[in-house]
Amino acid sequence: MRFVRALNTCAFSLRRRVISTHFLHCSLLTPYIGAHHFSVSGTMAAVADENSLRRALAQKQSSIDVQGGAVRQLKSSGAAKLDIEAAVQSLNALKLEKASIESQLQAALAGAAGGGSSSASRDAFRQAVVNTLERRLFYIPSFKIYRGVAGLYDYGPPGCSIKSNVLAFWRQHFVLEENMLEVDCPCVTPEVVLKASGHVEKFTDLMVKDEKTGTCYRADHLLKDFCKEKLEKDFSLSAEKAAELKHILAVLDDLSAEQLGAKIKGYGITAPDTKNPLSDPYPFNLMFQTSIGPSGVSPGYMRPETAQGIFVNFRDLYYYNGNKLPFAAAQIGQAFRNEISPRQGLLRVREFTLAEIEHFVDPQDKSHPKFSDVAKLEFLMFPRDDQVSGQCAKKLQLGEAVSRGTVNNETLGYFIGRVYLFLTRLGIDKDRLRFRQHLANEMAHYAADCWDAEIESSYGWIECVGIADRSAYDLRAHSEKSSVALVAQEKFSEPREVEAMEEKVAMEMKADLESKGEVEFHACTLGKNVTIKKNMVSISKEIKKEHQRVFTPSVIEPSFGIGRIIYCLYEHSFYTRPSKAGDEQLNVFSFPPLVAPIKCTVFPLVQNKKYEEVAKLISKSLTAAGISHKIDITGTSIGKRYARTDELGVPFAITVDSTSSVTVRERDSKDQVRVDVEKVASVVREVTDGLSSWADVLKMYPLHSSETAEE
Amino acid sequence: MRFVRALNTCAFSLRRRVISTHFLHCSLLTPYIGAHHFSVSGTMAAVADENSLRRALAQKQSSIDVQGGAVRQLKSSGAAKLDIEAAVQSLNALKLEKASIESQLQAALAGAAGGGSSSASRDAFRQAVVNTLERRLFYIPSFKIYRGVAGLYDYGPPGCSIKSNVLAFWRQHFVLEENMLEVDCPCVTPEVVLKASGHVEKFTDLMVKDEKTGTCYRADHLLKDFCKEKLEKDFSLSAEKAAELKHILAVLDDLSAEQLGAKIKGYGITAPDTKNPLSDPYPFNLMFQTSIGPSGVSPGYMRPETAQGIFVNFRDLYYYNGNKLPFAAAQIGQAFRNEISPRQGLLRVREFTLAEIEHFVDPQDKSHPKFSDVAKLEFLMFPRDDQVSGQCAKKLQLGEAVSRGTVNNETLGYFIGRVYLFLTRLGIDKDRLRFRQHLANEMAHYAADCWDAEIESSYGWIECVGIADRSAYDLRAHSEKSSVALVAQEKFSEPREVEAMEEKVAMEMKADLESKGEVEFHACTLGKNVTIKKNMVSISKEIKKEHQRVFTPSVIEPSFGIGRIIYCLYEHSFYTRPSKAGDEQLNVFSFPPLVAPIKCTVFPLVQNKKYEEVAKLISKSLTAAGISHKIDITGTSIGKRYARTDELGVPFAITVDSTSSVTVRERDSKDQVRVDVEKVASVVREVTDGLSSWADVLKMYPLHSSETAEE
Repeated sequence: MRFVRALNTCAFSLRRRVISTHFLHCSLLTPYIGAHHFSVSGTMAAVADENSLRRALAQKQSSIDVQGGAVRQLKSSGAAKLDIEAAVQSLNALKLEKASIESQLQAALAGAAGGGSSSASRDAFRQAVVNTLERRLFYIPSFKIYRGVAGLYDYGPPGCSIKSNVLAFWRQHFVLEENMLEVDCPCVTPEVVLKASGHVEKFTDLMVKDEKTGTCYRADHLLKDFCKEKLEKDFSLSAEKAAELKHILAVLDDLSAEQLGAKIKGYGITAPDTKNPLSDPYPFNLMFQTSIGPSGVSPGYMRPETAQGIFVNFRDLYYYNGNKLPFAAAQIGQAFRNEISPRQGLLRVREFTLAEIEHFVDPQDKSHPKFSDVAKLEFLMFPRDDQVSGQCAKKLQLGEAVSRGTVNNETLGYFIGRVYLFLTRLGIDKDRLRFRQHLANEMAHYAADCWDAEIESSYGWIECVGIADRSAYDLRAHSEKSSVALVAQEKFSEPREVEAMEEKVAMEMKADLESKGEVEFHACTLGKNVTIKKNMVSISKEIKKEHQRVFTPSVIEPSFGIGRIIYCLYEHSFYTRPSKAGDEQLNVFSFPPLVAPIKCTVFPLVQNKKYEEVAKLISKSLTAAGISHKIDITGTSIGKRYARTDELGVPFAITVDSTSSVTVRERDSKDQVRVDVEKVASVVREVTDGLSSWADVLKMYPLHSSETAEE
Repeated sequence: MRFVRALNTCAFSLRRRVISTHFLHCSLLTPYIGAHHFSVSGTMAAVADENSLRRALAQKQSSIDVQGGAVRQLKSSGAAKLDIEAAVQSLNALKLEKASIESQLQAALAGAAGGGSSSASRDAFRQAVVNTLERRLFYIPSFKIYRGVAGLYDYGPPGCSIKSNVLAFWRQHFVLEENMLEVDCPCVTPEVVLKASGHVEKFTDLMVKDEKTGTCYRADHLLKDFCKEKLEKDFSLSAEKAAELKHILAVLDDLSAEQLGAKIKGYGITAPDTKNPLSDPYPFNLMFQTSIGPSGVSPGYMRPETAQGIFVNFRDLYYYNGNKLPFAAAQIGQAFRNEISPRQGLLRVREFTLAEIEHFVDPQDKSHPKFSDVAKLEFLMFPRDDQVSGQCAKKLQLGEAVSRGTVNNETLGYFIGRVYLFLTRLGIDKDRLRFRQHLANEMAHYAADCWDAEIESSYGWIECVGIADRSAYDLRAHSEKSSVALVAQEKFSEPREVEAMEEKVAMEMKADLESKGEVEFHACTLGKNVTIKKNMVSISKEIKKEHQRVFTPSVIEPSFGIGRIIYCLYEHSFYTRPSKAGDEQLNVFSFPPLVAPIKCTVFPLVQNKKYEEVAKLISKSLTAAGISHKIDITGTSIGKRYARTDELGVPFAITVDSTSSVTVRERDSKDQVRVDVEKVASVVREVTDGLSSWADVLKMYPLHSSETAEE
C-alpha cells in the first residue's frame, strides 16, 4: 500500500515557488515539505481499487434507495407481514454490504496514505520523537513564556551542541577538504541586491484573507486541505468527482491566482476558523522587510538565502584565488522567510541556518579532478525519466550515472557523491536517503540540471539539500544590475585566430544596415537582443588574434538546510527499548559520536567522596583530550542515569566503581569493558574520534558484567 | 602629553545610551567607541598649559592691536621715518611672538590628543592595517559592487576563518570548560519581548534632520564635532570659551533632547553637508523593525542583543540543570543595531556577532568554587575611585581586588579572570588591555557592579567585553510581563521557622485596616506597592515552618563583541619589517596558531613534478591531522611566497626542496628547521596545537640555512 497522492502530485507540489520564482536564484527554494515522492509500485492498484469501491458504493446506495422505496410501498399498501419482513431483511443486508464497502474504502484510503506503515503509527512515532526532543530541550518553541511565535524555534543545549557538531563537520568535509573560500555576509540586505536576484518581484506565495477578521491563509493550502478532506472522508463522492479533486491536487502548484480563486469560490471554501468568506488570492512577498538607516528611504530585507552574498563578491574572490577557475566559495548563516502560516513543526520555519556552496567553473569544462574518489559510490537515485514513467528510486553507481548522462556533468556528480558521504556519516540512514532529479518543469529555464537530496521522515520525503547547476544566471543578473563585470578570463598559451562573426552573417548584417539603417543583434554577453544603427558600427573583414577568452562562469550550487537535516537525523536515530524490569519503554538516540551532543558521561556508581574524586580526575583528562562530557553525581540508580543519557544520545558512559579502574559502556549494545583510570580518556577519545571502533575496544579490554553496574 | 579630553569627558561619553536605556538590559550597550579613558597623568599639566597659552595669545593679540594702532597713528601724523620703522619692527616682533604661541598651542593640542604617539602616526598605522586587511580580503565592504551600505561588512576567507577560530576557542574556553548550557535563538523577535526588556521604549539615540534634504545626523555627534573643531583649530578662542566647550564635551551624554537642541541652535550649527538648518533633536529607535507573518499586526524586531533569548528560557534551563543554581547559559549569534550614521569602520557596525553568557546565581551566595584558579592573575585594572581621582590604570592581583571589595564578588571576579585569559590567549597584548569599572553614574540603578574589558587600539580604548552583575532585573522584568514565575528554590535541609512579617508591622497594618479599610503594602515579589483592602486579608499570629526559599536569581553577564575583539587583534598583531633587499616594508600578522586563518603553507621550492608530488603527500597528511593549510605551486620566488603568507599571518611554511626531507619556517623569527617528510605533519600539528613550542622544535631538529631557501 502506498500514499494516495500519485506521482504527478508529488512532482508538481514543488512547483508553486518554482513558477513564482522562475528567474530566481533560490537555493532550497521550496520549504514545502509535504512533497512525498514515493516509489509508486502499488499505487496504481490502490487507485483502481479506490475507484471500483467508490463505484460499488454508489451502486449499493442506489440499490438501497430502490429497496427502501419498495419497503415503504409494501407498508403503505398493507402487504403481508412476512413480505414486509423479507423486504426489510433485504434492505438491511444491503446496508450491511454498504457498510462493508465503506470500511474497505476507508482501509484503502488509509493504506494508500500510509506508505509502508499506517498513518496513525507514523504520527505516533513522530509524537514520541518530538516529545522527547522537547522534554530534553533539543529544541524549545521560541519565546515560549509569551506563548511563542509560529515558525520560530530555539535550539536548547543538546540541540545547539548537535548543530555546532554538524556545522563543524560540514566545514571540515567541504570547506577544508576542498579548500573553499568561506565568507560571512550580513543578513540585512539592501533592496538593490534582491531586485537583481529577482526576489523582490517574485519571491511570493498566494494568500487569501478572511474578509471579516483579516486572518491570512495560503490559498493553495486551503484548496489542498479541502480536496484531501473530501477524498478521505466523503464516501458518497463519485469516482468522477474524486478524479476531479485528485487532478486539482496534481496541478495545484501550476494554478494561477485567478484559477485558484475560481476553485476556492467554486467549492464554497471559507475561512477554516470562522467560516467567513475569503478574499481573492494575491501574492505576498516572503521576505522580512525593514529599513536601513533612519531616513526611511533605504528599504532592506533579511536575506532569504546566503548565496547572494557570494555572488556579489565574485570578483574579489576570483582575484583572491589567483584569477583561476574552478574554485568554490561557501557560507554558513541565517536565512529568513516570512511564511504565511507555517505548519509543519521544525521543518517549516521562518528563520533557519543555511550552508551554501557556490562552485564556479568554466562552462566549457565541468570535469572534476577528484570525481574518481566518489565514482564507485552506489546509492538510491531517482532520475527524471523514472519519475515520469512511474518507477521507483533505485540504486545506481554514481560513475555510471555521470557517464550515461543521467547526471549532467562530473562536477555536479562529485558534489552529489560528497553530499551522500556527508549525510550518511552524520547518521542519516542510507536506505531512507535518495537523490531525486528535478523534472524539466521544476527547473528554472537557465538551469542545466538539478538534484535534491531527499530524506524520508514521518512527513514523507523531505528536500534537505539541493544540488543545482545554475549555469551563468546569477553572475549575469548582478553584472547587469551593478554594471560591474563578473567574468573570468582564460589566457591562451598561444594566441588564437578568431572571427567575431561568421563571414556570411556579417555580410548579411552589412547589407541590412545599408538598406534599413538599423538591425537587431543578439548580444550574447548581455543575453538579449539590441538594436544596432548604421552609424554605430563598421563592418570589415580582418583576422584577429586573441590572447584570452572572457566568459561568465557557470555555478554549481549545493545548498544545505541544516535544520531539516538535523530533524531527519533525530527521526533516523530514535528508537525505544524495554527497561530491564520490562515495565516501560526507554528512548534512545543512536547518534554517532561525531554528532552526539555530549560524547561521554561520568558516573560515580554510588555517592562517595573517593569515587567523586576519581570522577573529577577523569573529567579533567577528558577535558584535556577535548571530549565534551558531563558528570552526574546524583544518587539516582545507575540504570536511571544510563537511561537519562541514552535519551540524549550520549554514546559512552564511564562508571566509577573503584579507584583504579572503571567501566566504559556503549549506548546501543549496552556492552561494558573495564579500563584503567589513567587510560580511560584516551580510549574514549579513540572511539569518539573514529580512530578505533567499539569492536576494537571490546577486543582490547575485558568485558565487564558485574550485576551492580547493570541496568 | 595626553589626550585633550579630560577624564570627565571620557567617563561621561558612555552615558547617552546608559541614560536612554536606564532600565534596560543592554550588554555591550555602548557601541560608542570614541570613549577614550586614558590615564590622566600629564593631562592636568596639558590643560594648564593650553589655558595659559590661550591667555597669552589673547594678550599678544591685544598688544598687536595697540601697536598696530600706534603704527597707523605715527604714519598719519607724519612722524619720522626711523620712528615709524621702529614701531613697525615692534609690531612684527609681536606678530612673530603670536605665531610662536600659536604653534605652541597647536603642539599642545595635538600632543594632548595623541597620547604617546602622534595622531598622524596612529592614523597612518591604522591605514596600513586596514589596507592590508582589505587587500587580503580579511574583510570586504558588503555589497561593494552596489557601492555598499554604511556599517555592513563581510568577513572574507581569512577573516571568516579567524572568526570561526575565535568562536571555537570561546566555546572551548567558556561553554565546555564551564559546562554552560548553550542555546541558539532566532534573531526575529516579537515586540512583547523587547517591550518587557525596555528596548522598544528606550533603546534610542537623539537625531536631527536636515530640514531641506531630510538627511539624518546624530545630534550629539554634531555638537561634539563642533566643539572639537573649535577647540582644535580656533586659536582666537578665549580660555573661558574653551572651558565652556570642554564642559559641553564632558556632559554631552547627559544632555536632554531640549538641551542638545538649544546648544545646536545657540551655536548656529547647520547640516555638515549642505549648511541647511536642522530640525530639533528627537529620539530614533536603533532596532531594525519588521513585521512577523502576513497580517501586518505582529510587529517584530531584529534582536539588538542575544541575552533576551536566554532570559525567556530561564525556567526550562533551570529545570534542565536539575533545578540547581548556579548555572550559566550561553549564546553566540547575530545582533542588529540600526545606527543613525555609523562612522568608525569595523568597530561601529549595524550587524555584528555577540557571544553572551548569563550566569545565574543565588544573590545570597556569589562565591565561585574555581575562583582560586584565577586569583593569582595580575593585570591592568582601573577601579572607579582611581578614575575619579585622576590616577592611571594599574596592575592589581585579582584575588586582592576581590578580597578588598574593589570587585564586588568572586563570581564577577572569576569571569574577569577568565576573560583576561581568553583575550590574551587569542593574542591581545596584555599591556594594552585593561579592566575598567563603571562609574556609579554609568551603571543602571539595579546593577551591583560592572567592568569593561577595554583594548587599546588606534581609536583609543575600546570596550570589547562587558562583565556586569545585573542582579535580578531581567528575570523580574520578564516575569512581570509574561506572568510566568522565573524563580529558583532553595530546599532547606531542615524546615526553618519564619514569620511573614515582623510582629510590630503586622499589628500596625491590622490597626490601619480596621480604621481606614485599606492599606498600602510593598510586595517584594512584585517589587512594587499594592493596595490591600480589609476583606482581602486576615491577620493572625502563628509560627510557620518553611521547607524552601523561593527567590529570583541574580545574573552575572559577560558579553563579548566578537568583531571588535577581532579588529583589535588585527591591530595588535600587525607589524612591518624590511624585505631582504631592504627596498620595501613587508607586512606581517603575528597571529598565534590558535587564531591564524591557515596554520601552514606548503611550497615546492621550484616548479617540478617530483616536488609537487611530495607537496601533495604532505597536504594529505596535514588534512588527516586536521591542520588547515594551502599549497602554493606558483613559480613566484620563495621570498615573495613567504611574504605573501606572512601577510595572512600563516605561522608555519613547509618548503619542499628534496623528496626525503623538507624545511619548516616559523613566521616571526624566520628560523627554519629540516624535518623528514613523514614527520612534518606531526611536527606542525604539535606546534599549532600548543603541545610543543617553536623553541622545542628548534632543539629537536637541525637548523636549516641554505641560501636557496632564504628570502
